[in-house]
Amino acid sequence: MDLRLYAVTDRSYLDGIDLIDAVEQAVRGGITIIQLREKEISSREFYELALRVKKVTRRKNIPLIINDRVDIALAVDADGVHIGQEDLPAEVVRRLIGPGKILGVSAGTVEEAIKAQKDGADYLGVGAAYPTPTKPESCAIGIEGIKKIKEAIGIPVVAIGGITRENAYEVMLKTGVDGISSVSAVFAGDVEENSRQLLESINKAIADRS
Amino acid sequence: MDLRLYAVTDRSYLDGIDLIDAVEQAVRGGITIIQLREKEISSREFYELALRVKKVTRRKNIPLIINDRVDIALAVDADGVHIGQEDLPAEVVRRLIGPGKILGVSAGTVEEAIKAQKDGADYLGVGAAYPTPTKPESCAIGIEGIKKIKEAIGIPVVAIGGITRENAYEVMLKTGVDGISSVSAVFAGDVEENSRQLLESINKAIADRS
Ligand code: NI
Repeated sequence: MDLRLYAVTDRSYLDGIDLIDAVEQAVRGGITIIQLREKEISSREFYELALRVKKVTRRKNIPLIINDRVDIALAVDADGVHIGQEDLPAEVVRRLIGPGKILGVSAGTVEEAIKAQKDGADYLGVGAAYPTPTKPESCAIGIEGIKKIKEAIGIPVVAIGGITRENAYEVMLKTGVDGISSVSAVFAGDVEENSRQLLESINKAIADRS
Repeated sequence: MDLRLYAVTDRSYLDGIDLIDAVEQAVRGGITIIQLREKEISSREFYELALRVKKVTRRKNIPLIINDRVDIALAVDADGVHIGQEDLPAEVVRRLIGPGKILGVSAGTVEEAIKAQKDGADYLGVGAAYPTPTKPESCAIGIEGIKKIKEAIGIPVVAIGGITRENAYEVMLKTGVDGISSVSAVFAGDVEENSRQLLESINKAIADRS
């Protein structure tokens, strides 16, 4: 599982472009894994969208992860599920998806991270690295917080929250995480170019770390 | 499967009472099956609510059906899933839940009903019997429409849409369906008394039909 550049979809950033086109551009730009996150559509629409995205990701062997909806992940035979603390409990999701599928869990504290690891997570999404509109200052655990969690657990970690083309290198370098995750840094603007530059920064940080 | 009085939850009707209390009252009043429908809560809240409702329904062997969310149904080991035309396709749901769980499908036309039966539905919710605020005149297939669908298929049918204590007898008598389904006729007001009177009307219609 290559978590270096973990794209998360959000159609509100896509002004005008079709989600499938955007995913194709992101794949061309070098994303290594993608999470489909949809909150406002019907189960049928989510299912049909996921089937369409899977056609794109399967061609390039990019793992497709479904946010929250275990049923959608099973229905389209996605590669995995990502859950937050408001979703089904991790141990229940692991039981539903079996040992073969990827389980990702969002964690904001060392305690949540250790519990998620114990409950069967394959990787963690940890943050926020920086404050964002939806996660104010008080929720951002920062570079230090992410580093602490990464050091406390054995499974891979993806840094999330407020990551941009400008700070991706620093986050990778200073936290030791396995990758960075973003919605806007990938999907706002030129998706292929964003992805290419992000991956370049990430690879440079990995090289500079060792 | 006893479909005579099929209660569907809706917290907007419960003014003030706890959903679990309301379900307990409905069970005491004689509902024969219940569907939990939740659209506005997180997956975790839905899961925890379903677990609590299941404790009540299992004591009286009332089947617990989950609306739309196959993952929640599997997570709590509910008795089944009910889907509409906007949810996952019936044949996909049947594959996910296996042969042992109940699959209900909403159908508004003979065509949809026949397809649902073919795709593995165990029963159908058919209507609307009468216009409702969310289903205007144009969507109500009426007594005649429900009767036509009931006659076209072999699996049990529950009539839905605009059913009240006043018209439940007539719907049962004239359509030949196996039961009636309602949110408000059960949950608006005195839940136990509503359920008792509805079941009485339904039983009287069944007796008068034969
Ligand atoms: Ni929703």
